Amino acid sequence: MTPFPHLPPYPTVRLMPKADARAVRHGFPWVFANEMVLDRRTRKLAPGSLAVLEDAERRPMAVVTVNPDSKIAARVLDRDPEAVIDGDWIATRLSVALRHREALFDAPFYRLVHAEADGLPGVVIDRFGDIAVLQPNAAWADAGAETIADALLAATGIRRVVLNGSGRARGLEGLGEELRMLRGDAPEGPVEVPMNGAVYMADLMGGQKTGLFYDQRPNHAFAAGLSRDARVLDVFSHVGGFGLAALARGAASALAVDGSAPALDLARRGAEASGVADRFETRQGDAFDTLAALDKEGRRFEVVVCDPPAFAPSKPALEPGLRAYERIARLAAPLVEEGGYLVLCSCSHAADLAKFRAASARGIGKAGRRGAICYTGFAGADHPVLPQLAEGGYLKALVFRL
Amino acid sequence: MTPFPHLPPYPTVRLMPKADARAVRHGFPWVFANEMVLDRRTRKLAPGSLAVLEDAERRPMAVVTVNPDSKIAARVLDRDPEAVIDGDWIATRLSVALRHREALFDAPFYRLVHAEADGLPGVVIDRFGDIAVLQPNAAWADAGAETIADALLAATGIRRVVLNGSGRARGLEGLGEELRMLRGDAPEGPVEVPMNGAVYMADLMGGQKTGLFYDQRPNHAFAAGLSRDARVLDVFSHVGGFGLAALARGAASALAVDGSAPALDLARRGAEASGVADRFETRQGDAFDTLAALDKEGRRFEVVVCDPPAFAPSKPALEPGLRAYERIARLAAPLVEEGGYLVLCSCSHAADLAKFRAASARGIGKAGRRGAICYTGFAGADHPVLPQLAEGGYLKALVFRL
Repeated sequence: MTPFPHLPPYPTVRLMPKADARAVRHGFPWVFANEMVLDRRTRKLAPGSLAVLEDAERRPMAVVTVNPDSKIAARVLDRDPEAVIDGDWIATRLSVALRHREALFDAPFYRLVHAEADGLPGVVIDRFGDIAVLQPNAAWADAGAETIADALLAATGIRRVVLNGSGRARGLEGLGEELRMLRGDAPEGPVEVPMNGAVYMADLMGGQKTGLFYDQRPNHAFAAGLSRDARVLDVFSHVGGFGLAALARGAASALAVDGSAPALDLARRGAEASGVADRFETRQGDAFDTLAALDKEGRRFEVVVCDPPAFAPSKPALEPGLRAYERIARLAAPLVEEGGYLVLCSCSHAADLAKFRAASARGIGKAGRRGAICYTGFAGADHPVLPQLAEGGYLKALVFRL
Repeated sequence: MTPFPHLPPYPTVRLMPKADARAVRHGFPWVFANEMVLDRRTRKLAPGSLAVLEDAERRPMAVVTVNPDSKIAARVLDRDPEAVIDGDWIATRLSVALRHREALFDAPFYRLVHAEADGLPGVVIDRFGDIAVLQPNAAWADAGAETIADALLAATGIRRVVLNGSGRARGLEGLGEELRMLRGDAPEGPVEVPMNGAVYMADLMGGQKTGLFYDQRPNHAFAAGLSRDARVLDVFSHVGGFGLAALARGAASALAVDGSAPALDLARRGAEASGVADRFETRQGDAFDTLAALDKEGRRFEVVVCDPPAFAPSKPALEPGLRAYERIARLAAPLVEEGGYLVLCSCSHAADLAKFRAASARGIGKAGRRGAICYTGFAGADHPVLPQLAEGGYLKALVFRL
């Protein structure tokens, strides 16, 4: 196995006397920059360096990875301060993560590693059969990507590894963008992904994030269960997440709306692979404009889904973001038949469930409709969260019956 | 159809000038006693009387039911102030509620009416095939129970109606306890209820609440999905909710613990009806004591479920209730195998999700274990909630992977 770039003995870093050492002892996985002694020696550590974290009384607490440039100055890797972080250590964590997914799913298509909650801080790995897409969103994992790739091959049935370095989190860690094969050959064209009875096409080498969002799986399933014989509108459809699942469960028709022509092309190919292309229609365009246009055309649906990108990714974006969620609800509600369902999703960290729910209800009310909530869903079980970070559960799906 | 006891023209009641008329206009279903003009004439209205609610400028807003003795002085029945509340009106609401359940479920076993969110304030109706169990938890519904029974027969395939007048809510409305047949003959013995692949036995004439809790259905299903080949411990099992569903999905064994001998007897009969009796074991006893005893005996399980009664039903009970949830988690965590799952439930209104999650995580931590949350569930979709009342979502289920 490629040796991990940082070898023991690890340097030490120390909590400030005012820092709450109990938080770390009780399972909080991070140390913020204002809680750690950032002396000259610590500041000189390369981002991603490994270190032994000590409390203010110099008692060793854990092996951490340090990034003096990040607001999250240290992330806990192992609560055993004697632990050696190497390929075997990573492979053990991967095996534990794998066992959970194998308990959950019959087929090897899932998020295999969801960062902190899987004991691999900042590491996201999605699995598509024998291909893994690794997102090293923290400096230690970026530096150790080769070791992680070897461990993936050793601990799982995976044979090919894509490194997908993109997204906001890497920027905060001072990491650049890249997309390349770490192991094996690049897939030729999109990969077929079975989920909820449908087949999706994921473009791992060119798509948004890792080409497919596994997080919505239980919410796709719930909405699909409501969609038998229904006309379904799937706005912000990406590669057809809600729409194809609904068709697989017997929807009469699905119209997918997205701004991205490549995403809609993948959705159409997914519809063909799922054997539902005859009931599947797409329309490229701005979601807000298209919702208004569909209303003007008098189109109505038993199930309308809006799964927009994060309108409120951060605190400063909260107020405008909530207004955008309200507007989506206001434009979508009139398209829902009486007694039909409106599925509204948010993947905004900053908009918590209560705020998102209130914005959605306001929008529905402004459209002159009323609704009861019959379902509140979050990201699927292959996206575990630490209880200490659970408030940040970013994905919410609400189903209103109008 | 039996005529509804209150006939138009309805008397009027009025909002105080300081009351927020917009709340009602925007869908809030209640008027609190301090928001309504409670003059002598209004105070003399019999609990459950129908009335037309006016705003402070005497503009009619809605038909409401009034209970001058309750903190909830008025509940909105119809936003059309001209509406006539009679058997046909009730039958229409029942038909709308039925359509939602028929979209959700293949078999007629579900909560048919969930009060405010189904447009029938204070009315709860559970359906067991051709039998309905009606809980009239507000005075208007208690007075109109005969009309509701007729409407049930007219609007659904239901032929027998049980009136189950029990529980806290009726006390707050000044209603007494009763249990009797409104229509048809009482079922002879427990009723078979198919759910999640198992068969449960519900004693509609003698059991707790309506003899079976439908609200946990999606959470049973999720936990059962994790239970293939697992040893499952189901504490506070009632009639076997989690345990039988797990066995139906291939659990190696299930041990049901409950304080009630009649509940465990129904659970055993359910296991027989489900064809899983050879893998099913029961133990009667106090849950806290039994958890401690099982640990002493060295028993271990891949899946442990604790679904206790409401430890924090009201605000004064919040702190002791949270300590009880913490204690349950602390006693249950040691019984979970490494990499196994701990399912913790709360049906306490007063303990919100964040507080319940924190208490559970504290208990797990005090047992020297750590866990990530892979599932957060609520009551099933046959238990809709109005967005304005959604904060009160009483049922929460958390699945920790330890």
